[in-house]
Amino acid sequence: MAEEIEATIKVLGEAIAARDASAVLKIEESLHYADLAAIYQQLYDEDDRHFFLRTLSPERFAEFLPELPEDLVEESLNHFKPSQQREILQATTDDDRVDILQDVSDVTRHRLLGLLHKDEEELTRTLLRYEEDSAGGRMTTQIGRIPVDLTLQQALDALREVQEDTESLSRIIVVDDSSRPLGMVRLRDLAFGNRSGHIRDILRPVEQSILATADQEEAAHMVSKYDLVLLPVVDESGRLLGAVTHDDAMEILEEESTEDIERIAGLTGEQSEAGYLNTGVLTHFRRRFLWLLGLAFLAISSGYVMLRFEPVLDSVFLLSLFMPMVIAAGGNTGGQAATMVIRAMALGELDSGNALRVAWKELRLGLLLGLLLAVCIAAAAIFVLPAFRPAMPPGISYAQLGLSVAVALAIQVTASTLIGSLLPLWARAAKLDPAVIAAPAITTIVDVSGMVIYFTTARALLGL
Amino acid sequence: MAEEIEATIKVLGEAIAARDASAVLKIEESLHYADLAAIYQQLYDEDDRHFFLRTLSPERFAEFLPELPEDLVEESLNHFKPSQQREILQATTDDDRVDILQDVSDVTRHRLLGLLHKDEEELTRTLLRYEEDSAGGRMTTQIGRIPVDLTLQQALDALREVQEDTESLSRIIVVDDSSRPLGMVRLRDLAFGNRSGHIRDILRPVEQSILATADQEEAAHMVSKYDLVLLPVVDESGRLLGAVTHDDAMEILEEESTEDIERIAGLTGEQSEAGYLNTGVLTHFRRRFLWLLGLAFLAISSGYVMLRFEPVLDSVFLLSLFMPMVIAAGGNTGGQAATMVIRAMALGELDSGNALRVAWKELRLGLLLGLLLAVCIAAAAIFVLPAFRPAMPPGISYAQLGLSVAVALAIQVTASTLIGSLLPLWARAAKLDPAVIAAPAITTIVDVSGMVIYFTTARALLGL
Repeated sequence: MAEEIEATIKVLGEAIAARDASAVLKIEESLHYADLAAIYQQLYDEDDRHFFLRTLSPERFAEFLPELPEDLVEESLNHFKPSQQREILQATTDDDRVDILQDVSDVTRHRLLGLLHKDEEELTRTLLRYEEDSAGGRMTTQIGRIPVDLTLQQALDALREVQEDTESLSRIIVVDDSSRPLGMVRLRDLAFGNRSGHIRDILRPVEQSILATADQEEAAHMVSKYDLVLLPVVDESGRLLGAVTHDDAMEILEEESTEDIERIAGLTGEQSEAGYLNTGVLTHFRRRFLWLLGLAFLAISSGYVMLRFEPVLDSVFLLSLFMPMVIAAGGNTGGQAATMVIRAMALGELDSGNALRVAWKELRLGLLLGLLLAVCIAAAAIFVLPAFRPAMPPGISYAQLGLSVAVALAIQVTASTLIGSLLPLWARAAKLDPAVIAAPAITTIVDVSGMVIYFTTARALLGL
Repeated sequence: MAEEIEATIKVLGEAIAARDASAVLKIEESLHYADLAAIYQQLYDEDDRHFFLRTLSPERFAEFLPELPEDLVEESLNHFKPSQQREILQATTDDDRVDILQDVSDVTRHRLLGLLHKDEEELTRTLLRYEEDSAGGRMTTQIGRIPVDLTLQQALDALREVQEDTESLSRIIVVDDSSRPLGMVRLRDLAFGNRSGHIRDILRPVEQSILATADQEEAAHMVSKYDLVLLPVVDESGRLLGAVTHDDAMEILEEESTEDIERIAGLTGEQSEAGYLNTGVLTHFRRRFLWLLGLAFLAISSGYVMLRFEPVLDSVFLLSLFMPMVIAAGGNTGGQAATMVIRAMALGELDSGNALRVAWKELRLGLLLGLLLAVCIAAAAIFVLPAFRPAMPPGISYAQLGLSVAVALAIQVTASTLIGSLLPLWARAAKLDPAVIAAPAITTIVDVSGMVIYFTTARALLGL
């Protein structure tokens, strides 16, 4: 299937390059709007994009517009005439329409809102008031909702009226007189139940709902944890406003995990919807530079420590053979521990209340890792190193050198594991995003401590 | 909502500790099975767990068993009598039952299969033949399917018969005489359509389907990309076997992104379903040790390079002040580039065919980052360093030192960015998981090249 699509995409690209409108149109018709959106994003030439848009009907464009990254929305939409823009906005669901309007400039948003019918405009303005990354900002209002005092037949009749305008009907929310969700019924309960029965008797209580002002990530986690088709969104008085659907939840989770991954790697800013290749070099630059500069200056402290220990290194220069290894081992173990803890927190398994248990686990783990690595390295220093006949100052044996390196390594690995696991927990306790304590920062911090540990141990154990 | 549940969980924990069965039972009834599973996993004491299980009815246990991590399945299930085990297995959906049976030992699996009715046993054995991480291993067969030559009324009657046994009815798959999927209808189309109309006239073509042997991740990406409620799974002849549902897809995507994050950090093996705290120290140890050991030996090459350049360092020991910074900057930029490329590949935005475009983008980016970092560091060396009056050998100026460090930094950052972005693409081209080229490995590799770049530049520019 995937290969077929790839092949089709290639043919389409050629037809676009050849400006063959009828060929383009024919291929377009056979493709899903998600594929069209993917293809459109791969057209790096503006003329190609414009040609492609000219072949699209407003209806088809309305399907694929919500799939586009933020920075292509306005350019693409402005390709159409105002009357077509109205048609496009009316064809999208309310939550997609809000997303689209959030992606355009203030002037364009104002103009587009003016194209809508009065009631649509009002609804859209209301939805636009919610933060883009809140449950309210993500919800759709186009859901099935029925009052509780109906029979199944009455409910079916009511839903028949509105079904064209609903996004999902597989779960229907039952509300009381004040619009508060009382429960849900499945469409199949209505379709296959006794028509003269009462909704009241078949509804299942709503066990989960979320405030419109809550974070979209919380909503997505609830949908995922409780295997929901839709999650009711309510206002402060508990009145039903809309729902977050399972496909929105999936999109939110993908965005969030990309963001986590990038933070762990020390990339700042929001995950760009535009994707790697569509993001310009300057944007990539901005997202990477500040962290790098900060880390570079932090790394100079390692150099300072090394300068201070010049006499130690001078007397046993062979110490420099193992120095990068001891330091890097700390960075690696610290980075691993940090990543595991950050991910466990993102999945809701851990928070700063668990700090002591995490510390205890990582302490044992760090000791175990440190001791085993130390044994391997000591063995290498004692049994393999002499074969290379390196310059060794008088009075120092291979065993002494091996022991010194091994002890430093064990301390460094244990300390780094502990630091790597506790810093993200500390960040969470300090109300920071744990992922801001990115792995590179931990690496740099444990580099400095590693340098101190390495030379202090050598000075003590080699009697320098 | 979340706080309410936390409070309930706390009370439940106390009731369990106090062995107050009636209190436990009362709280259990008010909780969702996903919450029960979360609580159960947090009971670290075996006696607590057994007490908790004793208070659960087999029906309730059947709901929460599929939510448990692999290593708790057998222990928990064996707490029940064979007759209860049969009841439990019959109450789960077919895909959950298969998952459960995959999580127990061969002996137990054989015994449990023997408890099932003949036809259930046969179906389960068939499903067990698919790889655990294939579309077939994840699919459910409990979907709505109807032949194409029915009227809406006949279709509704047929579905009414089977509705108790279906997991999802919001999309119903229409098949031809040879069981090949022809299209889908929505339950609402049946419920609100003209009963004497024909299914043939209202079906929407099935645009997506997947082979049972395909990777579960591919299935999940299709569900996500095309916003599907269910994705039909077919055999090699195109016959309908079952479907992957949206909630399974969400679970798959969460597992996969956790795996990506962990690979990037240099953790080996499968993502453990058991979660961070429930995973034993020894398991954590196994997942981290081998990478660390390999990286430690690799890091000795850095030490070797440093040994070789002893004369350079001896004559300008001040070079050691900036050495860790230049090297770490390479690790950080390389790690960032690798992470972005790995994630873009995981999201399907990139593959090795894009290598040239990626290389070109990262080359420009690396140059930009390298030059700007170099300017900042050169400024620090020329204007700030003299204030500290460090020991500088005669004949070398601060400007010369600053220039040497800056040039090395620019080269190191550019090279590392390029290495970090291309290694994962190379891994993909070599049919390896790109995430195996974890960030720590890239860091170690660019450490070595950084050491060479640093000292070679210093030797050339300082005339040593």
